[in-house]
Amino acid sequence: MTTNADGPQTRPRRRTPAGAAVLREDVTEAIRAAVFEELASVGYARMSIEGIARRAGVGKTAVYRRWRSKLHLVLDVVSAIAVQGLPAPETGSLEGDLRVLYEVTSRALRHPVASQIIPDLQAEAARNPDIAEAMQKTLREGQEGVAVKILAAAARRGEISAGAHDELALDIISGPLYWRSVVIRSPKLPKGYLGALARATAGALKAL
Amino acid sequence: MTTNADGPQTRPRRRTPAGAAVLREDVTEAIRAAVFEELASVGYARMSIEGIARRAGVGKTAVYRRWRSKLHLVLDVVSAIAVQGLPAPETGSLEGDLRVLYEVTSRALRHPVASQIIPDLQAEAARNPDIAEAMQKTLREGQEGVAVKILAAAARRGEISAGAHDELALDIISGPLYWRSVVIRSPKLPKGYLGALARATAGALKAL
Repeated sequence: MTTNADGPQTRPRRRTPAGAAVLREDVTEAIRAAVFEELASVGYARMSIEGIARRAGVGKTAVYRRWRSKLHLVLDVVSAIAVQGLPAPETGSLEGDLRVLYEVTSRALRHPVASQIIPDLQAEAARNPDIAEAMQKTLREGQEGVAVKILAAAARRGEISAGAHDELALDIISGPLYWRSVVIRSPKLPKGYLGALARATAGALKAL
Repeated sequence: MTTNADGPQTRPRRRTPAGAAVLREDVTEAIRAAVFEELASVGYARMSIEGIARRAGVGKTAVYRRWRSKLHLVLDVVSAIAVQGLPAPETGSLEGDLRVLYEVTSRALRHPVASQIIPDLQAEAARNPDIAEAMQKTLREGQEGVAVKILAAAARRGEISAGAHDELALDIISGPLYWRSVVIRSPKLPKGYLGALARATAGALKAL
């Protein structure tokens, strides 16, 4: 029988090298789904690894084998939403690339779970420097990672000047849609909003 | 003796018209200060009118005479921070007005209490439609109220076209600094940030 890290829930499967700990993907996915449900139902502060494991139908060990802590688990799940299916768009123009980014980000921010988890984690971050740091890292690697690629491509094409005000450029790209979707919590974007936002943002970046 | 709404903590003061309920300003200020301290120490969810009253050294009735609920009290205090001393700036240019707005907003968002209260209330808003609505109203009347005046003045001067994409214009003005200060929680703004932000935002609004 193979060595399998998922314990009692595991049925024997294909032969794997002796001693290798196989993390079953279906168990991982069940845990991820349970995290969403727990977050939406009790919120980050009251959520426990035990509750997640129970909801996923696995043992607590199955959770701890994959993630060190509740924080790491949640950040992993949140960052998976943030960058879900998002390679750098390559439309050939800054405005076109931003438009694609905004379409994807807008859908992600409107995800009913994301729109509840993100403010929860922001509130935690205000009281807990570890969470603040982890959130920053996740935001930078997710949302801002794509924005950095878009900016680099625009600089290569000569649409914007390279390197000046990098942090400001990222804030200009990420801030407005976040403000509208998460802060104002506008239930619906005005008609033509994303196209106009891409046009205006591209204008701002060229003015930097 | 005068009718005084503040009950046992009150000493007789100047004569006021019979039957007039006088709300003592020093009691109001003590309650506001207590709200800040309670919010910072226990957070919105666990804060109670009783705890606020105790910290302010007044009776619960003194609080309820001034505000209907914990939510109304907190929103009043938050909105007072948001617009503190902020008339519409009149520098004569869109970029200049935005620069003034950003200086003031940046200081307000960095207020250690604001940076803890706002995320708390955002998290509450994600679970409670009443709080979401009240937050929206406060944001619109505070931060966005000034932005609306700045946009109107710029339109009168012919710097931007009037009325097009009003909501988008507000998001472009408010989003980036909020993203940097509250979401990314950058401990310090890069050198020259606010000036460059005002320049870039003015560029974006002219491109709308």
